Amino acid sequence: MIIVMKHGSSKKEIDHVIKMVEGQGLKATLLHGTERNVIACIGDKRHISQDFWNAMPGVEKAMPILSPYKMASREVKPTNTQVQLSPGFSMGGLKVGVIAGPCAVENKTQLFSIAKRVKEAGAVALRGGAFKPRTNPYTFQGLMEEGLEYLAEARERTGLPVVTEVLSPEHVEMIGKYADVLQIGTRNMGNFVLLKAVGEQPKPVILKRGMSATIEEWLLAAEYILSRGNTNVILCERGIRTFEDHTRFTLSLSAVPQLKQLTHLPVIVDPSHGTGKRYLVNPMSKGAIAVGADGLLIEVHIDPERSMVDGPQTITVEEFQRLMAELKPIAEAVGRQM
Amino acid sequence: MIIVMKHGSSKKEIDHVIKMVEGQGLKATLLHGTERNVIACIGDKRHISQDFWNAMPGVEKAMPILSPYKMASREVKPTNTQVQLSPGFSMGGLKVGVIAGPCAVENKTQLFSIAKRVKEAGAVALRGGAFKPRTNPYTFQGLMEEGLEYLAEARERTGLPVVTEVLSPEHVEMIGKYADVLQIGTRNMGNFVLLKAVGEQPKPVILKRGMSATIEEWLLAAEYILSRGNTNVILCERGIRTFEDHTRFTLSLSAVPQLKQLTHLPVIVDPSHGTGKRYLVNPMSKGAIAVGADGLLIEVHIDPERSMVDGPQTITVEEFQRLMAELKPIAEAVGRQM
Amino acid sequence: MIIVMKHGSSKKEIDHVIKMVEGQGLKATLLHGTERNVIACIGDKRHISQDFWNAMPGVEKAMPILSPYKMASREVKPTNTQVQLSPGFSMGGLKVGVIAGPCAVENKTQLFSIAKRVKEAGAVALRGGAFKPRTNPYTFQGLMEEGLEYLAEARERTGLPVVTEVLSPEHVEMIGKYADVLQIGTRNMGNFVLLKAVGEQPKPVILKRGMSATIEEWLLAAEYILSRGNTNVILCERGIRTFEDHTRFTLSLSAVPQLKQLTHLPVIVDPSHGTGKRYLVNPMSKGAIAVGADGLLIEVHIDPERSMVDGPQTITVEEFQRLMAELKPIAEAVGRQM
Amino acid sequence: MIIVMKHGSSKKEIDHVIKMVEGQGLKATLLHGTERNVIACIGDKRHISQDFWNAMPGVEKAMPILSPYKMASREVKPTNTQVQLSPGFSMGGLKVGVIAGPCAVENKTQLFSIAKRVKEAGAVALRGGAFKPRTNPYTFQGLMEEGLEYLAEARERTGLPVVTEVLSPEHVEMIGKYADVLQIGTRNMGNFVLLKAVGEQPKPVILKRGMSATIEEWLLAAEYILSRGNTNVILCERGIRTFEDHTRFTLSLSAVPQLKQLTHLPVIVDPSHGTGKRYLVNPMSKGAIAVGADGLLIEVHIDPERSMVDGPQTITVEEFQRLMAELKPIAEAVGRQM
Repeated sequence: MIIVMKHGSSKKEIDHVIKMVEGQGLKATLLHGTERNVIACIGDKRHISQDFWNAMPGVEKAMPILSPYKMASREVKPTNTQVQLSPGFSMGGLKVGVIAGPCAVENKTQLFSIAKRVKEAGAVALRGGAFKPRTNPYTFQGLMEEGLEYLAEARERTGLPVVTEVLSPEHVEMIGKYADVLQIGTRNMGNFVLLKAVGEQPKPVILKRGMSATIEEWLLAAEYILSRGNTNVILCERGIRTFEDHTRFTLSLSAVPQLKQLTHLPVIVDPSHGTGKRYLVNPMSKGAIAVGADGLLIEVHIDPERSMVDGPQTITVEEFQRLMAELKPIAEAVGRQM
Repeated sequence: MIIVMKHGSSKKEIDHVIKMVEGQGLKATLLHGTERNVIACIGDKRHISQDFWNAMPGVEKAMPILSPYKMASREVKPTNTQVQLSPGFSMGGLKVGVIAGPCAVENKTQLFSIAKRVKEAGAVALRGGAFKPRTNPYTFQGLMEEGLEYLAEARERTGLPVVTEVLSPEHVEMIGKYADVLQIGTRNMGNFVLLKAVGEQPKPVILKRGMSATIEEWLLAAEYILSRGNTNVILCERGIRTFEDHTRFTLSLSAVPQLKQLTHLPVIVDPSHGTGKRYLVNPMSKGAIAVGADGLLIEVHIDPERSMVDGPQTITVEEFQRLMAELKPIAEAVGRQM
Repeated sequence: MIIVMKHGSSKKEIDHVIKMVEGQGLKATLLHGTERNVIACIGDKRHISQDFWNAMPGVEKAMPILSPYKMASREVKPTNTQVQLSPGFSMGGLKVGVIAGPCAVENKTQLFSIAKRVKEAGAVALRGGAFKPRTNPYTFQGLMEEGLEYLAEARERTGLPVVTEVLSPEHVEMIGKYADVLQIGTRNMGNFVLLKAVGEQPKPVILKRGMSATIEEWLLAAEYILSRGNTNVILCERGIRTFEDHTRFTLSLSAVPQLKQLTHLPVIVDPSHGTGKRYLVNPMSKGAIAVGADGLLIEVHIDPERSMVDGPQTITVEEFQRLMAELKPIAEAVGRQM
Repeated sequence: MIIVMKHGSSKKEIDHVIKMVEGQGLKATLLHGTERNVIACIGDKRHISQDFWNAMPGVEKAMPILSPYKMASREVKPTNTQVQLSPGFSMGGLKVGVIAGPCAVENKTQLFSIAKRVKEAGAVALRGGAFKPRTNPYTFQGLMEEGLEYLAEARERTGLPVVTEVLSPEHVEMIGKYADVLQIGTRNMGNFVLLKAVGEQPKPVILKRGMSATIEEWLLAAEYILSRGNTNVILCERGIRTFEDHTRFTLSLSAVPQLKQLTHLPVIVDPSHGTGKRYLVNPMSKGAIAVGADGLLIEVHIDPERSMVDGPQTITVEEFQRLMAELKPIAEAVGRQM
């Protein structure tokens, strides 16, 4: 860490900061600049907040050198983590994996026919929401446990592992009985109680990016899970909130290669929520694979028009089939398989 | 609602949309434009998502006329809501109220001396965090129930009602035993399970704005609480995430007069988290009162440098005293009292 | 256009608005809603600002149905526009084109050797800045006319058409004497005097997106050029300003397929400025082609470390060669050629 | 400057960076950290771009200690700059000054009656656009020189100095003949050729913030003007582009006290463009004065409904009169006069 002192800070203030630095077990080196004094602090103390130093008299700013996450960092673990979704597929390996299904589980017929079709098209897992986080309190909130039962039955019929969202710590155990993979949605990336809860159980977790989270905040959210013992974390870029108004969110594909530098965790992309528009799902899926994503999370429905949730961004099973065929040469062009 | 059909949409598509509109109990009027056809839909059906229409073939976009929140809307309830914090003070009336205290409860001595001092300076309630949502999993997470006990004891000593944050539905009941007002933090504004839980208990709720929430999303979050039966909701602007990097967040003071048009709920401002900088707390508090805020939520500490959390944005009790004196003429200039 | 009247607007206000609408040659239809009255206005009058209506007493908001740009719109011209850069290459056709070169022209030797190498690797045009828009007034501002001379000489040596930025209307004529394509940078997308000036000369124009421009504003900037008579406009996505701090800007690749719906103009992507990081240029170039871009604009240097401008985002000629080889299968996977 | 080397950077890379640092006349100190090596560079070389260092092999990032602007910095000039607008008023002193007038000059009658009324209400200068930067090429672009003549005549009639926008370097001289203060609009804050042109003439300049400019970029734009010899620069906050959609822009009032720390230049606020809504002009004007602004720039019209430009954000002369009366006690509450 580097502590920059204010222009004109007193010797007493400088001495005080150095004493505090050394009190934390760090080595302090004072550098006299032409306009500012700077204190270089050596040692690894990620648990001390930068704010601690910023609050001291005479300090202009503390600038960290090390990232505050550790277990998520590629420096600590250089090799790629592979997260097993089923006996036949791990996310983060050579094979690109596409998770597909309806936004919300609506009924058995709908779910089973979608599951069958996405399986045939090559999906590696089935997604479906039983507990839905809806912005509007007056809209459909999901089938809850009944939906989970349908998902489990769909798994038996198709062999596809099941991914579903968990909204609250009190549901973690129950959902874990039905699902193979737990998903944390964008609105809960900063729900630290929930992160701890999924960190204390063994099922893989898909951690969506908070819609206004920096990459560092996102990796710190992953760190919450990892540090509780669950190392099966998959990161999912799903669009960030910006001034752009043509798409619901701005899908930040550069986050994918950026994360590949910073972390060993698998990274997937959700082009459905990330754009909010059906006709953008196909090109943005291709873009995601081309920039190096390990997989995709796509909303697919038999009849998007009748979809109770997120219809405008949901593609049909026919469109999904075509997309899967079109993705193959892209994956191969970047040295991956499908 | 207005449904704009695509350039070149077919008669069949138009008829289909009209049929669907009428199937929802709305009256449809078809307008032939020079380049587009438009279907005006009359009736109040806020529970049907705009997305439902956007997904239909031939539809370019559905444009809602009515806001999707109802109970929070000033149209439905034109008079200001006043939320009672203590027998002596309600937020939303003529008197501007300042809630003050440490970011986190750290120990008894700290809390009691801060409580005594902010009370003397004119605060209407004491804030203090017992459960802390921390971005970094390796930093102090709060004293939890022990902290709540200290807060309750501080109330007995000072008479100040106590405001504290609730992070998870499973804590609502327990925290409700100690606190007078429950706070929902920015990271939980979209935690709908938690919103429902605080909506089903009677204590007033301070609902902070999600750091990337639009005003409509924020009012819909309030609607979650209101629609469960709890009408004691106070909105708190606390800064939004933008590209600005000099402050931690961009405090959007225009949200205050904007909300005053749209809703009857009281609106307060948190200049501490909203800026992240101690020296901005004073001017931004003045600005908040000048634009019409009903109150403030301010972090105050005996010794910010020793504060375990958020030191850089915390002011001293002396600075708080001076601020309170300086706010009085501003409040009076806008027709309020302190 | 749809004009939504305020809840409780008077008959007099409504009549007044209708009169004004009809005064503009539009047909007005009044619709009585359950909570609001709405006036549907039929006719094509894009030149009347939405603001004109918003300002009237009793009006809540005016909602346009038609986009305000016309000549740039795909509705007006459904077929793709191809912009000829040289006798051998047009942007917007089957072939994907990559424009490459140094950020700034620094000297003859540098420029000629880069030009030779990018030509060999398959670039379709040479880029190089002679007039540099620099945020910091104390940094290198470009070689100016001398730089243009070198560019012209590089064209003679390699046969590559030359792309260079124009900063001011008074330079348009002079730069047009040397360059084949004029570039409008992100900081000048809203410099309407400059847009008019390049619209009144015949050379193709690469119009970069303003870093905080919506897609509509960007197309309106293109409309400035088109409406002055120059229809050779290429749009270039180069990153938008968001809260993300890991990259200099957020490259919004979804803008590409979005634009392909809205406009007939060719769309290219600048992954160098759009990310600000050398190691992101390769993956984001692939992503750009995969989402459907017609071309790329890439900063290439013999020795990026010695580059006087934008070194961190500039790739070497060797990296460029490899990138060009790697892009080929991606282009083919999406039905294009290179 | 602090240069952080990558984890695992080689001795050769470190030596190379140190050699380059010393080659620039800076003193280099190597610090061996537990996970990273860091090179502290001492000396004032603001003209070397941070990018220069970032591009070197083995470098993770260069972190500047000094801000890149100098003449605009309060460290270099601690006392407030006052910019004289007329013999009777300087912006930046004890007196708060309000500049008012129509968005665009439309005709003589309109201008003269507005000028008379704002003068009576206490405005210190008259604003009015003769050259209008319009997003839509099909809308009114201003009266141009004819408008300037009217402005000059309005000055003679009222004694108010005249503020008008300059869009292009080639107009600077001509506009300078008529106007007392030149305004640079938000879309031209990064038009460096124009900044240089207004820096080379003596009239005061109001420099609006670019809608996506950081405070550092804004101060660097001011530095362009100052470094050319014109020290009469007034900064004007006018709203930034964010995801908020209820206001046209987000007026960032915290920029005002922030700037007061960083620079000696006067700071004013434009609540009209900053919100885009008439009913927010009054509260946001009060907020601006409360946070410490030196003045305001407000759009006032006799009949906003007939205003050819920006009607929805323009207040009437009656509203302006009332606002001026209401601002007085706010100004006094923060130790200023009106």
